[in-house]
Amino acid sequence: MNVRVTVWNEYRHERHNEQVRRIYPEGMHTTIAAALRAEGFAVRTATLDEPEHGLSEEVLAATDVLIWWGHLAHDEVRDAVVERVHARVLDGMGLIVLHSGHFSKIFKRLMGTTCNLKWRVGNDRERLWVVAPGHPIAAGLGERIEIEHEEMYGEPFDVPPPETLVFVSWFSGGEVFRSGACYTRGQGRIFYFRPGHETMPTYHHPDVQRVIANAARWAAPTPGAARVFGNAAPLETR
Amino acid sequence: MNVRVTVWNEYRHERHNEQVRRIYPEGMHTTIAAALRAEGFAVRTATLDEPEHGLSEEVLAATDVLIWWGHLAHDEVRDAVVERVHARVLDGMGLIVLHSGHFSKIFKRLMGTTCNLKWRVGNDRERLWVVAPGHPIAAGLGERIEIEHEEMYGEPFDVPPPETLVFVSWFSGGEVFRSGACYTRGQGRIFYFRPGHETMPTYHHPDVQRVIANAARWAAPTPGAARVFGNAAPLETR
Amino acid sequence: MNVRVTVWNEYRHERHNEQVRRIYPEGMHTTIAAALRAEGFAVRTATLDEPEHGLSEEVLAATDVLIWWGHLAHDEVRDAVVERVHARVLDGMGLIVLHSGHFSKIFKRLMGTTCNLKWRVGNDRERLWVVAPGHPIAAGLGERIEIEHEEMYGEPFDVPPPETLVFVSWFSGGEVFRSGACYTRGQGRIFYFRPGHETMPTYHHPDVQRVIANAARWAAPTPGAARVFGNAAPLETR
Amino acid sequence: MNVRVTVWNEYRHERHNEQVRRIYPEGMHTTIAAALRAEGFAVRTATLDEPEHGLSEEVLAATDVLIWWGHLAHDEVRDAVVERVHARVLDGMGLIVLHSGHFSKIFKRLMGTTCNLKWRVGNDRERLWVVAPGHPIAAGLGERIEIEHEEMYGEPFDVPPPETLVFVSWFSGGEVFRSGACYTRGQGRIFYFRPGHETMPTYHHPDVQRVIANAARWAAPTPGAARVFGNAAPLETR
Repeated sequence: MNVRVTVWNEYRHERHNEQVRRIYPEGMHTTIAAALRAEGFAVRTATLDEPEHGLSEEVLAATDVLIWWGHLAHDEVRDAVVERVHARVLDGMGLIVLHSGHFSKIFKRLMGTTCNLKWRVGNDRERLWVVAPGHPIAAGLGERIEIEHEEMYGEPFDVPPPETLVFVSWFSGGEVFRSGACYTRGQGRIFYFRPGHETMPTYHHPDVQRVIANAARWAAPTPGAARVFGNAAPLETR
Repeated sequence: MNVRVTVWNEYRHERHNEQVRRIYPEGMHTTIAAALRAEGFAVRTATLDEPEHGLSEEVLAATDVLIWWGHLAHDEVRDAVVERVHARVLDGMGLIVLHSGHFSKIFKRLMGTTCNLKWRVGNDRERLWVVAPGHPIAAGLGERIEIEHEEMYGEPFDVPPPETLVFVSWFSGGEVFRSGACYTRGQGRIFYFRPGHETMPTYHHPDVQRVIANAARWAAPTPGAARVFGNAAPLETR
Repeated sequence: MNVRVTVWNEYRHERHNEQVRRIYPEGMHTTIAAALRAEGFAVRTATLDEPEHGLSEEVLAATDVLIWWGHLAHDEVRDAVVERVHARVLDGMGLIVLHSGHFSKIFKRLMGTTCNLKWRVGNDRERLWVVAPGHPIAAGLGERIEIEHEEMYGEPFDVPPPETLVFVSWFSGGEVFRSGACYTRGQGRIFYFRPGHETMPTYHHPDVQRVIANAARWAAPTPGAARVFGNAAPLETR
Repeated sequence: MNVRVTVWNEYRHERHNEQVRRIYPEGMHTTIAAALRAEGFAVRTATLDEPEHGLSEEVLAATDVLIWWGHLAHDEVRDAVVERVHARVLDGMGLIVLHSGHFSKIFKRLMGTTCNLKWRVGNDRERLWVVAPGHPIAAGLGERIEIEHEEMYGEPFDVPPPETLVFVSWFSGGEVFRSGACYTRGQGRIFYFRPGHETMPTYHHPDVQRVIANAARWAAPTPGAARVFGNAAPLETR
């Protein structure tokens, strides 16, 4: 069966900002979803202003990997939905957090830190160097990804040390950033991927699309080993 | 200057249960504090039923390492105090979480997971094997710590993979547990240490006292590198 | 295309020891190979006493994942073959090291440590607890694997800290062991899996076979990102 | 007792190259040693052309932390001395490998990989960003270290994933590098620190000196837990 991906987008910039709409006329989620469909994933989308933000119990139960983009309205995401997503991640659903999603409730909830960082809207060149060249998320890439225009994110990035670091970004303005970071929480795999400022056409970039597809394959759940919690009788007689 | 440790204890079992009081007549915190003073630490204690749980801004500002034991009343710890402790850990304060503190609000807040596990009150023998023999927290130990009577905790332990695993416990009833685990969050170092059921004299055990002292030295903050977050001008002219 | 596995076995015990031959009449490699074929892998075998130990350049070039069992004759493995395998691992070939293979030249070469441990031939019960229940190598297991009779391996295990720890073993004689450990070296993925003493029928155990199959899938190479080493011209003009 | 540091230097460039001699008239080891003495360490030096490369059993037995700089003559270091240093590291001696020491026999022996990388002698600006601001090796630094002129080292760096990554370098020519990386091997702590091309005055830089001193404190051995290897009787009667 195909991996089932739900692409979640705040979907506000695209509706209220002409510059962003020109780049993503139907929203970033639609661009990302199309790229994933072309790779064989079963994709649906969900956005903030839908009922339950489009993330009902039924949708999450039918989601293998959730992709998350948010920026302006992190606070409008209801806590009940955050807890529902959190429980699903611990139960095995993959989660890919994009760009400004670093400040989303769900990412901060899973990381346990502020997830703060340094930034500059300006117009840097970003160069993502592969530092884990055998990792499935880097499959088929060259030694780096070049993005001509991007917002800068700089260190320190206040997250737990990544379990695996896949990319490190170089910015023309002088900063670096750990821009591709893998985590495990419960049975779920989480990938944070830095690029994707709304005013740049980053999600049309073939290498960026490839990384997101690679990450969706990597984060898709495998049949977990049984987990038994709570009071337990002894296994050995003594 | 000496490392300043605050030993926090829920301090309910000792007041309401005769069996526990016989082992820790003045509370577990008093036993742990005495062992740390003998090692040269500057120690104070704090308990749940004091105002602000004994963890005012002033106390935390003067604390290098906080030790936490709780069990019955995790829910009574006020969220505002949890957030205060959380902020101090990210800012560099060390945190040592003992035994049933795995379900405390502060530990779950920092881990981002349920922190659930398997348990049995019975009466297992616990044997903590050192798996990181060069680590400062294992300094001066033999190859293992023997505890004649303890509550069992078993895997899976729903925490993020430890950055460093120092101890693995063997239980006579047939289980294992990752019983000494190091984490970094922000500038703070965190150590989870498993043993310490209230009805057993575990905190009188010399090796257990030694581990707690070693951990307090390890978790004490070093002068952190500067952290600058937020909007940043480019460093390079282009 | 199917993942291509080469099962390498020293294949001495089975030819010279009646007890072992009864359990593995055609060698452990044949038992392991059959289990992998049943899971859809393309499998060949190789043994110490074949020319080049059965690991010619051609064989290795056509191998995605190499499985290694050795014990009596580690020293008879020629250094040139070890270097050949080493180069292939760094280039992306997966490697699964079984049981007494911990002392093989190739494993020590990749780990950089002595790989020493504690052992007892006796007759322990081994119970492998899953500590990473969402990991692909644990897919489809219960919460633990029970092996009625096994040789004991105990801590300390002198290897680098595993990048991911999947299993921890409990032994009836009182020890624990980090018995399923993942590493990355170059583009290659490495899994060490503890069970498999030659006088016990461990490789007939369905859960052990399942773990080896899961590990072979996990260790199979993905198309690596390009790696460019050496002298490099600047990318930016200044 | 003071931490005892031995600074080892190949000491060829300084004797044969006028440009290098002007910067380090008595060798880089002398500059580094002086900086460490000013911080209270007990320091000796050793160089390639001394008998046993200055690293006799006696010297190593009296060394808590060994610092290593080599470049031209890695192959001239005798294997017996490499094995001696290797054994001491596993037994707890700290090791700090500087710059071109990435290709030394001892570092490759401990890492198990090629330790290859990308480089450019040119004249880049290097900026080392702190990515682990609470780590002891970053103590007292600003958010970054600026080095006006340095050789470039670029990714991929073919080493095992660092257990802790402390610094990431930005280079004006467009590359990044994981330039401060911590490892554990046996009971020993290892730190790789990138800067230090012989034709630049890098080891006179106060922040570089501070990092080396911090690393020497961090890598100094603590009294290790006992390690018992080999055949073992059962602890439990069954």
